[in-house]
Amino acid sequence: MSRTIPSDSVGLVNPQALHFERSLRLESGSELSNFDLVYETYGKLNKNCSNAVLVCHALSGDHHVAGYHNMEDKKPGWWDNCIGPGKPVDTNRFFVVCPNNLGGCSGSTGPLTTNPATGKPYGPDFPIVTVCDWVKSQSLLADALGINCWAAVIGGSLGGMQSLQWAIDYPDRIKNAFVIAAAPKLSTQNIAFNEVARQAIRSDPHFNNGYYYENDSKPSLGLMLARMLGHITYLSDDMLDEKFGRELSDGKIKFGYDVEFQVESYLRYQGRSFVDRFDANSYMLITKVLDYFDPARSTNGNLAAAFAPANARFYVISFSSDWRFAPIRSREIVRALLDADKDVSYIKVHSIQGHDSFLMPIPRYHEVLRTAFNRIAGETAP
Amino acid sequence: MSRTIPSDSVGLVNPQALHFERSLRLESGSELSNFDLVYETYGKLNKNCSNAVLVCHALSGDHHVAGYHNMEDKKPGWWDNCIGPGKPVDTNRFFVVCPNNLGGCSGSTGPLTTNPATGKPYGPDFPIVTVCDWVKSQSLLADALGINCWAAVIGGSLGGMQSLQWAIDYPDRIKNAFVIAAAPKLSTQNIAFNEVARQAIRSDPHFNNGYYYENDSKPSLGLMLARMLGHITYLSDDMLDEKFGRELSDGKIKFGYDVEFQVESYLRYQGRSFVDRFDANSYMLITKVLDYFDPARSTNGNLAAAFAPANARFYVISFSSDWRFAPIRSREIVRALLDADKDVSYIKVHSIQGHDSFLMPIPRYHEVLRTAFNRIAGETAP
Repeated sequence: MSRTIPSDSVGLVNPQALHFERSLRLESGSELSNFDLVYETYGKLNKNCSNAVLVCHALSGDHHVAGYHNMEDKKPGWWDNCIGPGKPVDTNRFFVVCPNNLGGCSGSTGPLTTNPATGKPYGPDFPIVTVCDWVKSQSLLADALGINCWAAVIGGSLGGMQSLQWAIDYPDRIKNAFVIAAAPKLSTQNIAFNEVARQAIRSDPHFNNGYYYENDSKPSLGLMLARMLGHITYLSDDMLDEKFGRELSDGKIKFGYDVEFQVESYLRYQGRSFVDRFDANSYMLITKVLDYFDPARSTNGNLAAAFAPANARFYVISFSSDWRFAPIRSREIVRALLDADKDVSYIKVHSIQGHDSFLMPIPRYHEVLRTAFNRIAGETAP
Repeated sequence: MSRTIPSDSVGLVNPQALHFERSLRLESGSELSNFDLVYETYGKLNKNCSNAVLVCHALSGDHHVAGYHNMEDKKPGWWDNCIGPGKPVDTNRFFVVCPNNLGGCSGSTGPLTTNPATGKPYGPDFPIVTVCDWVKSQSLLADALGINCWAAVIGGSLGGMQSLQWAIDYPDRIKNAFVIAAAPKLSTQNIAFNEVARQAIRSDPHFNNGYYYENDSKPSLGLMLARMLGHITYLSDDMLDEKFGRELSDGKIKFGYDVEFQVESYLRYQGRSFVDRFDANSYMLITKVLDYFDPARSTNGNLAAAFAPANARFYVISFSSDWRFAPIRSREIVRALLDADKDVSYIKVHSIQGHDSFLMPIPRYHEVLRTAFNRIAGETAP
């Protein structure tokens, strides 16, 4: 069934791909002899290339941020409510770029890519990358697109961590860093949840140590479990109560192990549909990217010292109901930025949607983004 | 290696068993034609049988609450720090009884028991029981022991739910109800975590729909995952940070999928050791007991109305760092008890151990218990 494209949408978009015929040395010491990045862009790069915005995706995101791939698409890109003509990140004014990150499963080089050494997919042999590696690869994409300096780098969750790393690693190539629903490093509990998710995948007999592409089976149950668990941590307790409460699918208790409470069928549905679009090896890898992120590791735990090189203006945003990366974690970032004498704005937005708030069109949140990007637009006029 | 029994221990104890040659009609409509309860007792029942205390165990607990089974035991019972001569629940003054609940896996009738209809273990065909069924079976145990009225019923977590149910179902057989780290019903998030745990067990190919006793294999990986996940929810974020932080097992990042962070090896250890002592069908069943608990279901959601029959004095205790059954959930109980004009004391104890606090010898907590049980001892003198 065909659809009408809303007038404030970026419309039909095509993913693009760039092949980098050069080696990329990774933080682990491994090297990719060459690599591809798939990405989308919206809006137009202005003459002096000063209006480019990099959007960084989170654990399960990809390059399809806004618009539609075809008229039959049921849903637009994952941040369509925020990016488009007249939207907070206004594509009439900004040139928006979003790549799929290395190690992902949506087209950029990752576990699904053929390993030149074996002629088979890398699978678990794809080297573990880091936020630093991602930022480095994104800088090469910027070079290729003729973007010397981003007007802004923006992302939520793991995306916000990339914004931070950009400000540290390329202080002269980023004017504004938006760090949304993020943390300066994972808490022990965050790592613990990631570990259970990875063990769920590894325990699936179809995982076969990650070498499952040649068999006609995937570790679907393991990945489904990982996603169900992740999903609980993305939503607030209150949100779950409001959305599902203790409602029973059949209206009464059945004294059995099939779905009874509506939240159970919701989670199973979320888990199942994720399996169709995501690769288990990428999931394993990206949870490791999260675990490893810790910019203060190289400054003996001193986060302010890690931020010392940065020149960007920082916008840090947290959400009251986010218990995965709670406001207190954002405040750690803000405190360190202040200690490092950086330019930082911080706001805690009231919400009930938990960590997922960063994807939601919460009026106060979008108002903050709109105001900030208006200011940036004024500064980047050609 | 032999050990010395501490002087404030109940010492060497023997589990006892009672066979009930009578049918027990369950809330589900199913019936057990007969059943066994395994239990331990400490201290002596006084002449007028007024000093009996029932301890109710939680999800993974059993009847071995205090003391040692033999001189080689590495650890005493699970609540040994609280129950013994001179301890908060003083076995010089009280006769303490703790049964393993129906559906458990430590000796009382449950999935491991032979199903008379088939001559094989019940396994997944063991009927799902409820907190009401447990309380009913405990009342039959009280009858058999000559206890007409408990001086106190005490329990943490799911154990606290049994205390509440006792006060509702047998108002004249309980003088004091201790409801520790509990909730009046599970939140949607609580149910969601239970669902992921059950799916982890069901996804294990060795689970075989619960019929795994005849094969020489158990759903160990699934049960291990369930326990790892549960364990995260029993501890506070701060506690995990303090205990493990982001410490690496080998001191440095290895860019691989083996254990790196110490919290990972801790969780795997916890998961593995649980598998040796617990049965997956019991785990499935008892998570359902938790999901179903909701005394206000029969009073159209009005918890105060559900408490109307109660005569007991209530002691409600919560812990500041408990996010599984947070203090706000205890306050729901307290508010309803006040609305129902019941005698209730409430205290929130500061702790960093999360939900597991109820098992810990936190001075303020034990002081509260000691004071309350002193008062009860004064009232129950023969």
